[in-house]
Amino acid sequence: MSDPGSIIAALHSCRTILISVHKSPDGDALGSQLALMLALEQMGKTVTAHNLDPVPEIYRFLPHQARITSGPIVAGRFDAMIVLDSDPPRTGLFSDNYPAATLINIDHHITNPGVWPHTWLDATASATGEMIYTLITQAGLSVDRDMALCLYTSIFTDTGSFRYSNTSPQCMRIAATLLEAGADSWLVTENVYESYSFNRLKLLGTVLGEMERSPDKRMAWVVVTDALFQKTGTTSEDTDNFVNYVRSVSGVEVAILFRQAAQKQYKISLRSKGRVDLSSLAQALGGGGHKNAAGSTLDGTLDEVKRKVLEEVAKVILSQMGN
Amino acid sequence: MSDPGSIIAALHSCRTILISVHKSPDGDALGSQLALMLALEQMGKTVTAHNLDPVPEIYRFLPHQARITSGPIVAGRFDAMIVLDSDPPRTGLFSDNYPAATLINIDHHITNPGVWPHTWLDATASATGEMIYTLITQAGLSVDRDMALCLYTSIFTDTGSFRYSNTSPQCMRIAATLLEAGADSWLVTENVYESYSFNRLKLLGTVLGEMERSPDKRMAWVVVTDALFQKTGTTSEDTDNFVNYVRSVSGVEVAILFRQAAQKQYKISLRSKGRVDLSSLAQALGGGGHKNAAGSTLDGTLDEVKRKVLEEVAKVILSQMGN
Repeated sequence: MSDPGSIIAALHSCRTILISVHKSPDGDALGSQLALMLALEQMGKTVTAHNLDPVPEIYRFLPHQARITSGPIVAGRFDAMIVLDSDPPRTGLFSDNYPAATLINIDHHITNPGVWPHTWLDATASATGEMIYTLITQAGLSVDRDMALCLYTSIFTDTGSFRYSNTSPQCMRIAATLLEAGADSWLVTENVYESYSFNRLKLLGTVLGEMERSPDKRMAWVVVTDALFQKTGTTSEDTDNFVNYVRSVSGVEVAILFRQAAQKQYKISLRSKGRVDLSSLAQALGGGGHKNAAGSTLDGTLDEVKRKVLEEVAKVILSQMGN
Repeated sequence: MSDPGSIIAALHSCRTILISVHKSPDGDALGSQLALMLALEQMGKTVTAHNLDPVPEIYRFLPHQARITSGPIVAGRFDAMIVLDSDPPRTGLFSDNYPAATLINIDHHITNPGVWPHTWLDATASATGEMIYTLITQAGLSVDRDMALCLYTSIFTDTGSFRYSNTSPQCMRIAATLLEAGADSWLVTENVYESYSFNRLKLLGTVLGEMERSPDKRMAWVVVTDALFQKTGTTSEDTDNFVNYVRSVSGVEVAILFRQAAQKQYKISLRSKGRVDLSSLAQALGGGGHKNAAGSTLDGTLDEVKRKVLEEVAKVILSQMGN
């Protein structure tokens, strides 16, 4: 296990640095990546930012996001590689043969096994962006307006705009400082929460119109199939956040989104209202996550995948909440 | 104009105090009212909390909210009356003959004309709750767990969970302090934003799934028919807020909700993103409203009403925005 001090020390002798985040990058991953890129450039480093998946539409307001490249291949070798907001395999890049001597992993997910020597994990951080803020200030760098917007987006999105229970006094004070450094809170809100494409909102509607729940009402779910994507002219990116609507139903403890990824493959997103801990479930389903959010990808027909997931979730609810 | 210091001084000689807020009370009004009630009781005062309208369902999680009485009449006389989060007439109580010698008004709305002698207005405050926090701490009182939850709810709801542009560094630092004093952020979120009924969310889904827009994409609309209310087990109350989803579509300037009120009668709700002024339209359609929101009730079949409204809206968009 590492800490900000030793990570800063390890980076001192590195000149070229690759930063990557997890597949299907979210606001925390991208905000952290861009802020750290800018900070390292302030230190005179040459930084490459590369992820498997492109930056989703709603995060294209982030400054310098166009510099993030994407795809399965990153050419070249680097002095250091930094993986943010996930364990290294979840980047979907390199499968073990990482192109750097110094390997650094920074994450706030409690499920991260911490395999790399320079792994700094802090499950008490609301977002990886909060850790990057600490790293940057501890390195004696100043947070400029662009970095502030990126880090604000990290904290804002990973706390669900300060709604979730990971909203800590610490993250609110950092957010206050980021606002003072020039982060525009309405810009983030408008892009993240008020820029639905027409097709995406119609997709959300169609999906919610078909929402189902268990007889005990503690579990509700929605399904997005390839056929529906085609019919509505949308892609899987457009389902970002859908599961949160399902969770907002009163009485529901765990919300589930099934999203078709291939003919016989489904991506699963789970959200808990807080009384059910999803950490163990994520592992049981071969995925990742933390207390209130988990995800996985399962092979099988929709019926098979649904049966398995609903069974596992029902078991977890029962074991943790009783009847 | 007054300030916290002189308000605290004025309250010193008062023993019985009435606190009221505006009609249709919201989270800021109620949170401020309850926190101030608890603070004044800490000071040994006898406090009556009374509003015209009852506490809405979603705010019944607030501690001591059951002590707030409601209705058009408040019996008795008081040493002081404090009106929070509105100008005194907006309470809908007393129409001028206020039952106290000392009249105090505390508000953050820029439209408050400030008629009462002890009026403290601060339009830079994110919420009236922020001002009450200042008042309480300046009076040398400590913010206990219940007061913290009430004031957190004030700030949380009036900033749209820290999404709107009134989200200031100051209000985030106060929120951090309130969390440390024991406010449970998730409890507030769950009650305010995560308590949709299953049927209501399914209705929203079905309605959005059928959303339409004009060829120029600047006008989008949804329709809720009686048949749909019956099919989903919902009522017209459940459509509260639906038109805001339509407005969140990028490119849409005016969003419209058609809601069946009788066999040949429809209620119309219109929302503008801010570039189109709806005031004149409300009058043309025989209804009321202001710049960004208007409404009316029209007789006719759905086709007739839709044709008329869409024509009028298209004309207004064209005249104000051009082609």
